[in-house]
Amino acid sequence: MNKVIVETSARHVHLTREHVEILFGAGYQLTPKKYLSQPGQFACEERVQVIGSKSSFPRVSVLGPERKASQVELSLTDARSIGVEAPVRESGDLAGTGSCKLVGPCGEIELTEGVIAAQRHLHATPEDAEKLGIKDKQIVSIETNYGGRHLVFGDVICRVSSNYATRCHIDTDEANAAGITGECEGTVIL
Amino acid sequence: MNKVIVETSARHVHLTREHVEILFGAGYQLTPKKYLSQPGQFACEERVQVIGSKSSFPRVSVLGPERKASQVELSLTDARSIGVEAPVRESGDLAGTGSCKLVGPCGEIELTEGVIAAQRHLHATPEDAEKLGIKDKQIVSIETNYGGRHLVFGDVICRVSSNYATRCHIDTDEANAAGITGECEGTVIL
Repeated sequence: MNKVIVETSARHVHLTREHVEILFGAGYQLTPKKYLSQPGQFACEERVQVIGSKSSFPRVSVLGPERKASQVELSLTDARSIGVEAPVRESGDLAGTGSCKLVGPCGEIELTEGVIAAQRHLHATPEDAEKLGIKDKQIVSIETNYGGRHLVFGDVICRVSSNYATRCHIDTDEANAAGITGECEGTVIL
Repeated sequence: MNKVIVETSARHVHLTREHVEILFGAGYQLTPKKYLSQPGQFACEERVQVIGSKSSFPRVSVLGPERKASQVELSLTDARSIGVEAPVRESGDLAGTGSCKLVGPCGEIELTEGVIAAQRHLHATPEDAEKLGIKDKQIVSIETNYGGRHLVFGDVICRVSSNYATRCHIDTDEANAAGITGECEGTVIL
């Protein structure tokens, strides 16, 4: 086995409980709109405005459930377009990352860090990791061949957990560079 | 020799004589602002608005000199953001490509075709082509390793002419997917 499903993540926001309450009101609960491929993760009905130094995105998708730290995931094109810094980082590795303002219907937050461009990554179940011959934190490459833009993504970090579904996640710049629209298949290269 | 300089092309427009006159006035001459790496090519002082079905870019760079067909080069992120079709094509291969409206200070044009996402390509002089072991129209790969986003671009088309300087051109999505900011070096893989 060396094939995995590759999914594209568009810009989105993860929020803490505290930030949900500031943006949407005391006691507010996020409303799941669509469950995602990773177990328990969902896109919410709620949206927030993400404001940078030059411009803003008025309605950015919020993903649930709540997290221990708020995190804004943008493509590097997105980051440049609104004027924020977005270092390439693993999810959750937020020290010294970019800042922005978040605005919801009930309030706003100056996020002093938490803006990143997600490092491309391969979630895998322990069973699939064994079949693929990969370990947690291993760096692999993934090859795709779509839209006249054949490409090999290096620096794909593997994350292995029984809480995951086996999926490679790339951002919209990466999908476009690879001619990918929608879900597709990639080949893992060790 | 297997190293080449990789440059990123941001969104831009090429115009015919007729379209220059419609957008900027009868007899108007484009004003070179900055000469580019390809001999004789220049970025102009003039800018045009590029309007799609959803939104627009208000000030897109015009490149000179004039061409036989007007052409709008966007990244796929750009195309989606303003709501136009931009098939991945070689420069000049415009049959059936995307449409948009162009607006200048003196007039506007409904461009029925000419919007593309440029196929990544390697311009080379005949001398450098020989050193690199490539021929005109050959498809090669180019490897880059920047910003934690090591990547191998496949489907790079070679264009060999004594009118060129040896440079690989990618768009902003491709640069971002590869963690590239500014000019950098890539390795040609045959």
